[in-house]
Amino acid sequence: METSVLQQLTGEFFGTAILIYIGNGVVAGNVLNKTKSFNTGWLHITIGWGLAVTMAVYSIGWLSPAHLNPAVTLGMASAGQFDWALVLPYILVQIIGGILGATLVWLHYYPHFEETSDEDAILSVFSTSPAIKKNKWNIVSEAMATAFLVYALLAFTQGEFTEGLNPVIVGLLILTIGLSLGGTTGYAINPARDLGPRIAHAVLPVANKGASNWAYAWIPVLGPFIGSVIGGLGFLLITSVR
Amino acid sequence: METSVLQQLTGEFFGTAILIYIGNGVVAGNVLNKTKSFNTGWLHITIGWGLAVTMAVYSIGWLSPAHLNPAVTLGMASAGQFDWALVLPYILVQIIGGILGATLVWLHYYPHFEETSDEDAILSVFSTSPAIKKNKWNIVSEAMATAFLVYALLAFTQGEFTEGLNPVIVGLLILTIGLSLGGTTGYAINPARDLGPRIAHAVLPVANKGASNWAYAWIPVLGPFIGSVIGGLGFLLITSVR
Amino acid sequence: METSVLQQLTGEFFGTAILIYIGNGVVAGNVLNKTKSFNTGWLHITIGWGLAVTMAVYSIGWLSPAHLNPAVTLGMASAGQFDWALVLPYILVQIIGGILGATLVWLHYYPHFEETSDEDAILSVFSTSPAIKKNKWNIVSEAMATAFLVYALLAFTQGEFTEGLNPVIVGLLILTIGLSLGGTTGYAINPARDLGPRIAHAVLPVANKGASNWAYAWIPVLGPFIGSVIGGLGFLLITSVR
Amino acid sequence: METSVLQQLTGEFFGTAILIYIGNGVVAGNVLNKTKSFNTGWLHITIGWGLAVTMAVYSIGWLSPAHLNPAVTLGMASAGQFDWALVLPYILVQIIGGILGATLVWLHYYPHFEETSDEDAILSVFSTSPAIKKNKWNIVSEAMATAFLVYALLAFTQGEFTEGLNPVIVGLLILTIGLSLGGTTGYAINPARDLGPRIAHAVLPVANKGASNWAYAWIPVLGPFIGSVIGGLGFLLITSVR
Repeated sequence: METSVLQQLTGEFFGTAILIYIGNGVVAGNVLNKTKSFNTGWLHITIGWGLAVTMAVYSIGWLSPAHLNPAVTLGMASAGQFDWALVLPYILVQIIGGILGATLVWLHYYPHFEETSDEDAILSVFSTSPAIKKNKWNIVSEAMATAFLVYALLAFTQGEFTEGLNPVIVGLLILTIGLSLGGTTGYAINPARDLGPRIAHAVLPVANKGASNWAYAWIPVLGPFIGSVIGGLGFLLITSVR
Repeated sequence: METSVLQQLTGEFFGTAILIYIGNGVVAGNVLNKTKSFNTGWLHITIGWGLAVTMAVYSIGWLSPAHLNPAVTLGMASAGQFDWALVLPYILVQIIGGILGATLVWLHYYPHFEETSDEDAILSVFSTSPAIKKNKWNIVSEAMATAFLVYALLAFTQGEFTEGLNPVIVGLLILTIGLSLGGTTGYAINPARDLGPRIAHAVLPVANKGASNWAYAWIPVLGPFIGSVIGGLGFLLITSVR
Repeated sequence: METSVLQQLTGEFFGTAILIYIGNGVVAGNVLNKTKSFNTGWLHITIGWGLAVTMAVYSIGWLSPAHLNPAVTLGMASAGQFDWALVLPYILVQIIGGILGATLVWLHYYPHFEETSDEDAILSVFSTSPAIKKNKWNIVSEAMATAFLVYALLAFTQGEFTEGLNPVIVGLLILTIGLSLGGTTGYAINPARDLGPRIAHAVLPVANKGASNWAYAWIPVLGPFIGSVIGGLGFLLITSVR
Repeated sequence: METSVLQQLTGEFFGTAILIYIGNGVVAGNVLNKTKSFNTGWLHITIGWGLAVTMAVYSIGWLSPAHLNPAVTLGMASAGQFDWALVLPYILVQIIGGILGATLVWLHYYPHFEETSDEDAILSVFSTSPAIKKNKWNIVSEAMATAFLVYALLAFTQGEFTEGLNPVIVGLLILTIGLSLGGTTGYAINPARDLGPRIAHAVLPVANKGASNWAYAWIPVLGPFIGSVIGGLGFLLITSVR
């Protein structure tokens, strides 16, 4: 990467904001009352999230490596492919970017929050929640999905690859995870995607909002971090076969 | 661009006509009575519009830069990447192309208009309307979505990129906007897409048509123009980070 | 094309058979009773048909130009891009390939025909029918959609283009036509796609079949042929602008 | 292939495990109670399976040829494009990989099995079953779909092709087969995809499970093997035309 640290942090900050604006925007369009896209369903959400990643990466990929995800940053460092000294600064700006992105969603869909009375639906525009609340298995789901994410991102660097289309392939990977592995916990697989918007939910004067469910907040942070290290080390293991 | 101004204007005119024929055609197929695709839903509309852009760009991209959208033309000029002298001629032929495109939809689905009694449905084949009518927030939605559109189009020029697949990536961008940001106002994000067909709705002898809702017509023109300048200037700001 | 005429005719024959096996197969999966994909809907059908074209082109594209469609063959000849002497042989083997493809669908879904009593549904596995039967407008729809198809295929040859992905782009074009223009007549846009399977419907001992609706059969042949010439000449007109 | 036999077998083992984790995971997300993706339908399943193949190939494609399917291994050998001596070792590790993959699905969705009482739904997370049980026609369906799969994979090697996107094209091929040909038997088209998970279903302590339906187990093994040889020989026949 030939860009300056300031450029990289700008990229991670602004890219995560775009990611959350587009990604959480698709949830807003699906769950808030009176939207034209109301209740379109799981394909809507998963295709939307996949494309959110693709477009966020295209939007700032020339400034930073476009992790846009603390678990990816940690996983890359675990596999020896990212400088440990930049891990904390990256994670910090990613989370702040997530707060900005969630704020943009709130402004974009402003009148629709006023028309929605379901507090759980409103929280889901910001943060994830599990389909069946069981801490142990929720962590397992988040960790397994994130391990696959990080392993696959590292594997992409091994093959021949049409460089300019990388963001599309990464978006397809996110779509895959959503379709196949997201049904349990709503696939945070990204601490900034869950924690940033949850902070926004807590502090913004969102119409009809309820509690921010902080009791669950640690799981979509810890699970992805555990998985990212497993994914990074798993990649080192596979590539060591001779 | 090595093509003549006449070629460029031909491209923008004919390309916008194709864009509206295909894009508004997908709305017709979704809302007009007795079509085989009746009521397929939001994924139908958003995928159809994304592909409409892709195919319109392939159809005339060797003649003109394929803006096909006055907001894109204005945004490109704002970012210093398009000649201001051509802005007005481009916008004019785009709008006229939009009128032609809407006329083609009317001919293609002719008997289905006769079978449809819902005046709002018929107008929606031509122009957008908001899910919740609040002028201020409708403008915010249109401006934010268009700012993202213009910023992303400019960002695409920064990375390495498989040149021949640009129209596909741009189509995915439009799909993204539809899925994540379209639920509020129906994502005009293009004054020619809304104004051209609204003129067609007003003047063509469309069966069962009602009023053309001119009271709303200025919002999908002004909103996208505001957003396009924000997107263009935002891009200049981001690229100025060192 | 450096392949022999025999190779080309083999490619057009076998490629059209694959096209119809996969394309009409998706209709069978959607309308025949007790299939796992029963009644999935318009996105199922249109994505399936788009991919049918993509995969048919990949399957035989090194043997022939992969028209797989008499209207494309005629349109290419109209635009001066195909040898008139080969038009009739191409069309003949395409239609025979269509008969073989429909036969493969019948074998693949054999027990499901026995479980389906709706004669219209069974005919729709083979041939198209209009949503609203009005000969004039049905021809207009088929001609307009085919004109766009042929124009776009010719336009694809003008831009820079990732050669190996051409079949994907062509498949997206077919998906576009299905989503935006198919709701009126079921988008035959290919005389071999309609006539070949209709012959198969007439002669095969298909369980629970009714009449083959020969009264409509001329429209999805004549409409696409008219459109293909318009598309070819339209392309010549656009490219003549200086 | 310049990788060692141990690397190839590692790739086939681990790649098939990923394939089944993602592929069968999409079925779990669709049929198990209380998932967020419950009952999304056939597009969910078919897009998910297509992407499962794409991502599994990217994940290990630099270690092995990524057959991940005993029928593909046999078909490639039938067409003279794979070493017969490696056929049995490949098939063995693919099946064992399938067992591991199904185990990962069970862990990922663990609490959802406890909430699901339908034994058929639970078995479908592991193995396929026919829509209409008729042994002869079920074998015909599996054989025809696999013949097309193997023929198409061989045809892909003939054209010019963007090498780095091969896994995407192969995923689209699997999506095609699912959409158009999968409605009869659930398109195993891969003995390891059906037999491996069925063994897992039999031995794991899955909550609420019923019988493993061994009476059907031979069909999604024999059908694909028959089809793969037909596909391989069919390709040799077509390429022999001069």
